[in-house]
Amino acid sequence: MSTFEVFRGSSEGKIVQDTVTRSVKPHEVFIETTHSGLCGTDEHYLRTGQVLGHEGIGIVKEVGQDVTSVKVGDRVGFGYTHEVCASCDNCTSGWDQYCREQKLYGFKDLDNGTFSYGAVWDSKCVYKIPDGYDSVNAAPLMCAGATVWTVMTEYGVAAGQRVGIMGIGGLGHIAIKLAAAMGCHVVVLSSSESKRQEALDYGANEFVVFRSGEAAPQDFKPLKHLLLCGSAAVDYISLVPLMDTHGSIYPLTVSMTPTPVPLAHLNMNGVKIQCSLVAPRRSIQSLFEFAARKNITPTVMTFPMTVDGVEDAMQKLRDGEIRYRAVLVR
Amino acid sequence: MSTFEVFRGSSEGKIVQDTVTRSVKPHEVFIETTHSGLCGTDEHYLRTGQVLGHEGIGIVKEVGQDVTSVKVGDRVGFGYTHEVCASCDNCTSGWDQYCREQKLYGFKDLDNGTFSYGAVWDSKCVYKIPDGYDSVNAAPLMCAGATVWTVMTEYGVAAGQRVGIMGIGGLGHIAIKLAAAMGCHVVVLSSSESKRQEALDYGANEFVVFRSGEAAPQDFKPLKHLLLCGSAAVDYISLVPLMDTHGSIYPLTVSMTPTPVPLAHLNMNGVKIQCSLVAPRRSIQSLFEFAARKNITPTVMTFPMTVDGVEDAMQKLRDGEIRYRAVLVR
Repeated sequence: MSTFEVFRGSSEGKIVQDTVTRSVKPHEVFIETTHSGLCGTDEHYLRTGQVLGHEGIGIVKEVGQDVTSVKVGDRVGFGYTHEVCASCDNCTSGWDQYCREQKLYGFKDLDNGTFSYGAVWDSKCVYKIPDGYDSVNAAPLMCAGATVWTVMTEYGVAAGQRVGIMGIGGLGHIAIKLAAAMGCHVVVLSSSESKRQEALDYGANEFVVFRSGEAAPQDFKPLKHLLLCGSAAVDYISLVPLMDTHGSIYPLTVSMTPTPVPLAHLNMNGVKIQCSLVAPRRSIQSLFEFAARKNITPTVMTFPMTVDGVEDAMQKLRDGEIRYRAVLVR
Repeated sequence: MSTFEVFRGSSEGKIVQDTVTRSVKPHEVFIETTHSGLCGTDEHYLRTGQVLGHEGIGIVKEVGQDVTSVKVGDRVGFGYTHEVCASCDNCTSGWDQYCREQKLYGFKDLDNGTFSYGAVWDSKCVYKIPDGYDSVNAAPLMCAGATVWTVMTEYGVAAGQRVGIMGIGGLGHIAIKLAAAMGCHVVVLSSSESKRQEALDYGANEFVVFRSGEAAPQDFKPLKHLLLCGSAAVDYISLVPLMDTHGSIYPLTVSMTPTPVPLAHLNMNGVKIQCSLVAPRRSIQSLFEFAARKNITPTVMTFPMTVDGVEDAMQKLRDGEIRYRAVLVR
């Protein structure tokens, strides 16, 4: 049996510290959490009572009898994937991370999360962190990084293409760094001129002040791919003139209410809207290896892994004060 | 100089017969129109005064001095593509048919169309009809057929996959026949049980009564591709449970007003919305060859190519009485 501290949300929206005791089944591992990124999605689950967090890094402290992929002492990442996910059809085909979202409310074991001092996890859903790559940097790759990496690697993005990234935040700033490291021509669209230098420092080739709803900048060369990493409220009609024939738009930050999309306009250029969420397992492992090799690190702010630390970080995220990913450190 | 009769729309919505005289430039051909399909899109241009029609079949009667691809006497198809299109960037990359739509209102020569006894056309945008394939069947392939064929051949549709076709109409009935001939598992979704036998006769493997907005049928196996060929007003939330992980939805009949799309729901399964319009040139030629080889023919109703014939056909299309494509015959 493993006993560990966890941080849950609550119906009042407060963070509650709790203790969980769980056995480790033959295919599972017990991980001592050392770091966790904080994601906007955690806000969605704040009032459900579940243990929050899905950008975890920790050390394997116990392995079930059937586990061969990791051993005690390994430093690993663990996130959205969970025991139910590892055996479902989507997992088999690699798209396991969708499952926890889909099954969340039907899933009884909500005692696991990465806002914790420990978690019991399916061994198929933990990822070794390359030696020398800091845990504080690895944490945001588990969701923010993996989400943009999936787009970059699963849907035909190629070096030399014009790749637009709209919004510099938790996802957007990592997207710039990854796309630049992949050899894309990176075009950052931001509502604020003040972020120009930072975007260029991160690897952008062009910086364009553009707000959704505005006319396209003059002489703008069209984009083959456009990652929407900023506000969920996007005026899609204003995006049409930005897109190349057969271009792809990736809505990575979306609202739960349907978005008006001008399909007739998109038809004219054969544009597609590729929806995507987090990542398949193969994608996460390859991201860690790529980030380590290319020395790509997110820009983080750290907070203590305590009730106060979680609440402080979540409030700053609401207030738009995180530059650009909060990481809770035990 | 070539002089030919044409049928235009008018501001009152009436069909007007007119005479046009035009020279044939070095890269152009003069085609004597014998057949033209009628498309719902013609309705959009009814009040603009342009010559209507974009599903033309005819005989080449004159060729410009630079033309080598066709000769006098050839039977050819001609449609959306036009002289401006043949030299623009999209054409170079194969996606020429978008252009006429995009440039329509800026394009001064609106004296060419397929509701006519003749047309002067860029030789790069005419397609030879295989011997033995009837012109009356070839006409609807120029737009309705080409639109679904592009989806079937450009976006990863493969034999054995579950391909849904929603709506049996001008596009949908050809889509069933093409998808069946390609070896797809064809699932037809229709609001009316009365079309079951017809759908199965066309090659459907499954027929499901489903109306947009309803719950998915029990035990429905998810679709890898879904072609929306019916009403433009689709409740996308109701489509989500029909789709497989990484499935694609193709909105082929769309309204000009933005459509509410539940992006967050589509994200869960990595579904994409691939917008598409008509076809690149390579696609049209390959469709004619495929249809001739597999003996795939649209189901047509014929009307005389006269003012009365055009008006009668358009009225029947408005009234939903066309089974399933109207063809005007000179």
